[in-house]
Amino acid sequence: MIGRLNHVAIAVKDLAAATAVYRDTLGGKVSEPHAIPEHGVTVVFVELPNTKIELLQPLGEASPIAAFLEKNPAGGVHHVCYEVADIIAARDQLKAAGARVLGNGDPKIGAHGKPVLFLHPKDFLGTLTELEQA
Amino acid sequence: MIGRLNHVAIAVKDLAAATAVYRDTLGGKVSEPHAIPEHGVTVVFVELPNTKIELLQPLGEASPIAAFLEKNPAGGVHHVCYEVADIIAARDQLKAAGARVLGNGDPKIGAHGKPVLFLHPKDFLGTLTELEQA
Repeated sequence: MIGRLNHVAIAVKDLAAATAVYRDTLGGKVSEPHAIPEHGVTVVFVELPNTKIELLQPLGEASPIAAFLEKNPAGGVHHVCYEVADIIAARDQLKAAGARVLGNGDPKIGAHGKPVLFLHPKDFLGTLTELEQA
Repeated sequence: MIGRLNHVAIAVKDLAAATAVYRDTLGGKVSEPHAIPEHGVTVVFVELPNTKIELLQPLGEASPIAAFLEKNPAGGVHHVCYEVADIIAARDQLKAAGARVLGNGDPKIGAHGKPVLFLHPKDFLGTLTELEQA
């Protein structure tokens, strides 16, 4: 089912400082910040040769990463995202296997304009796991 | 400096159960377990088209992932690993920038037989960050 690792998302309080760590200290290729109000985050993409790191800063009052940053004020890996060929088939197969899909189970449009779903971390080794339609 | 994302490591208490999650539920291609006593872990590699997930279970009395699993009993992302062309040059550049390298600063041989170093999570967005010689 799972294909490429689309990205690893790191939640941070200070996106400018986090961008500097990846650009200046680690020598990565970073994007401009993109505000994604419908997901409650501002994102900077770090382009690696084989995948991406996404630096996420809370945006708005009800950001889904706010609670994570309260628990992890220095930041940390928030989720990993795998590509799947057919997100509806993947969802149905996972639900049949007893895994919990977050929200109402309908894919939303993610940061790359493609349908995404999030899977419950308790069913996936304590790791919030996103699926994105390839 | 940083090149490919070599792997994402997920620490788990029960490697057989974790392997089943990635093999059976997520349909990933998983390896046999490899014991790496010098790093205090047993590893299963999940081969994705563009990178790897490494599932780590503590091995021995003084495993470096034991404390993480006490704090995160369900498991979780333990570190991310980037490839660098020259690990000594990378280390010296990072130290000159004020970043902390763990241990005595000398690379050890990692799970893939190549020199590796770990960087302090407080200097890298709350994320334990490994560098591996490409």
